[in-house]
Amino acid sequence: SFSRGMQTVTLIPGDGIGPEISAAVVKIFDAAKAPVQWEERNVTAIKGPGGKWMIPADAKESMDRSKIGLKGPLKTPIAAGHPSMNLLLRKTFDLYANVRPCVSIEGYRTPYTDVDLVTIRENTEGEYSGIEHVIVDGVVQSIKLITEDASRRIAEYAFEYARNNQRSSVTAVHKANIMRMSDGLFLRKCREVAENFKDVKFTEMYLDTVCLNMVQEPTQFDVLVMPNLYGDILSDLCAGLIGGLGVTPSGNIGANGVAIFESVHGTAPDIAGLDLANPTALLLSAVMMLRHMGLHQHAAKIQTACFGTIKEKKVLTKDLGGNSKCSEFTAEICRRVQDLD
Amino acid sequence: SFSRGMQTVTLIPGDGIGPEISAAVVKIFDAAKAPVQWEERNVTAIKGPGGKWMIPADAKESMDRSKIGLKGPLKTPIAAGHPSMNLLLRKTFDLYANVRPCVSIEGYRTPYTDVDLVTIRENTEGEYSGIEHVIVDGVVQSIKLITEDASRRIAEYAFEYARNNQRSSVTAVHKANIMRMSDGLFLRKCREVAENFKDVKFTEMYLDTVCLNMVQEPTQFDVLVMPNLYGDILSDLCAGLIGGLGVTPSGNIGANGVAIFESVHGTAPDIAGLDLANPTALLLSAVMMLRHMGLHQHAAKIQTACFGTIKEKKVLTKDLGGNSKCSEFTAEICRRVQDLD
Ligand SMILES: CC(C)[C@H](C(=O)O)[C@@H](O)C(=O)O
Ligand SMILES: CC(C)[C@H](C(=O)O)[C@@H](O)C(=O)O
Repeated sequence: SFSRGMQTVTLIPGDGIGPEISAAVVKIFDAAKAPVQWEERNVTAIKGPGGKWMIPADAKESMDRSKIGLKGPLKTPIAAGHPSMNLLLRKTFDLYANVRPCVSIEGYRTPYTDVDLVTIRENTEGEYSGIEHVIVDGVVQSIKLITEDASRRIAEYAFEYARNNQRSSVTAVHKANIMRMSDGLFLRKCREVAENFKDVKFTEMYLDTVCLNMVQEPTQFDVLVMPNLYGDILSDLCAGLIGGLGVTPSGNIGANGVAIFESVHGTAPDIAGLDLANPTALLLSAVMMLRHMGLHQHAAKIQTACFGTIKEKKVLTKDLGGNSKCSEFTAEICRRVQDLD
Repeated sequence: SFSRGMQTVTLIPGDGIGPEISAAVVKIFDAAKAPVQWEERNVTAIKGPGGKWMIPADAKESMDRSKIGLKGPLKTPIAAGHPSMNLLLRKTFDLYANVRPCVSIEGYRTPYTDVDLVTIRENTEGEYSGIEHVIVDGVVQSIKLITEDASRRIAEYAFEYARNNQRSSVTAVHKANIMRMSDGLFLRKCREVAENFKDVKFTEMYLDTVCLNMVQEPTQFDVLVMPNLYGDILSDLCAGLIGGLGVTPSGNIGANGVAIFESVHGTAPDIAGLDLANPTALLLSAVMMLRHMGLHQHAAKIQTACFGTIKEKKVLTKDLGGNSKCSEFTAEICRRVQDLD
């Protein structure tokens, strides 16, 4: 059943612990005989013609060909005026949906159990428009931009996601009581799209109410869809509920199958190169990627092996509460993957 | 020591359960012999000259005289174009700081213990500017307005609050990596003010990181200061950590001692008039009010009686896990207040 040909994936190892955890993922994919051919590329912002920031041509070219990327953490730009690579990648490939499944991991204790939700964040506009002005001295405005097209597109993505992933409800998260026109437009598009997905329950909730309910009873939520900034906040909050960014996968999805999957934790420079890093977030992102590529069996095998390792608690990296090295944790997952054959 | 004269407080009972919980607070204040004279006023938005929404003249006049208000929940306006009374009150009296202490309540179980933090929210500008435009069909912008003056004012309030309340740190919450100019201005003012408060530790954190850390380890936070919308979100999130809006007090503070304290939960129309409501949030807001008025001993007595009642778990309203009526819960607090004499 694994007979289809190799598919190319652009691998952006990233900074700090990025190369180690990327190597771990590559090993586990090998063990799982995932039909993936890696094309490694570095991304460091470069200045193109007219002073515009761009990603390097060979990385762009690889992504344009492969359409699929897997990306480790990138260090945040130090120099002012230097763009965030994360934002630049989203923009370059018009990755309009940021998708983060947050699922409680058996054996990894947090104050919450049975969390099983997905945040879907509009990734291209809203508070991230980058348009700001000084009106007069001491008075500044930032512009939040909401468009009908981007709102409809993300709403459609959320409902399709719910339908394709056997999820029963979509909640639109907003502050249309305050930002009546912008969040109002976003909400209206969600309502319109909901009309076309009668099999999926649709609800609306204020962002503040979502936050309050989320920390009290997160199991009430299923798929949540929201404008950019609210997604930035809620996706991190939800990651916190299940154990943090070290165990939370993320995918940035564009049109025509283009997508970049990434771990959203930091580069952890203090432990870089010491074989101590936890590859789980990148690995689970890679599992999302396999599903996106239609490689469901490989995805299931790797996920089972990863969760099994965490549940058994024998071979865990330090941040997960164990004493094992990254390489040992990786080897244990490989062993389990092979056992599943 | 309770020899000073009576002080007038404008009491806005509010809608739904508002009158019941206000009556409970009045009873408990009587039992505590708090030197407070209530002046009851209703607020329903009325249309003034030129179609401007205003609060009724007698309520405005009372507040102008007393400077201190205690307010129950108000129902959210149903008719479009009708303003939120909460927003109108903040605006009318320039209540620029929303202060919400979130402290774990002994005996009331949540997934968290030892939470003890205060969110301080800029209450007048930011995303709540109300300025929005349709640029072209299907493209809408909302304007977030940040000013130097309001940012400095709220930063100063936060540091003074920390100093006066024996709190050791202030964290500025921002997204200046994205909104470089607006949140950048806010952050700069916080940094500047911090220079004048060397006895208070100052830190900065991204809003998304705060949310993540908040659900993982809220005890790391002390005083948090932030722009309007972030405060709306974080204050509700933090309320969730300690048991919800039913037990969380809130104060809106202006210049020259003007302030309105309020419960921020809803009007609970389903149980209104049934003697089932929980007056805790309004009572703890009234305790904040007493401290604001310099009546520290009365504040301490009432707070001790309230927390004692909750800790003992014998007389609790339904939402707190008990079977008692609002009047029984209130009577128990009164009994304890009198015992403390
Ligand atoms: C790195 C930063 C620009 C980014 C954001 O604010 O969106 C991050 O927090 C994220 O969630 O991907
Ligand atoms: C009632 C509503 C306008 C308000 C807000 O959004 O600020 C509420 O959520 C609050 O926190 O006081």
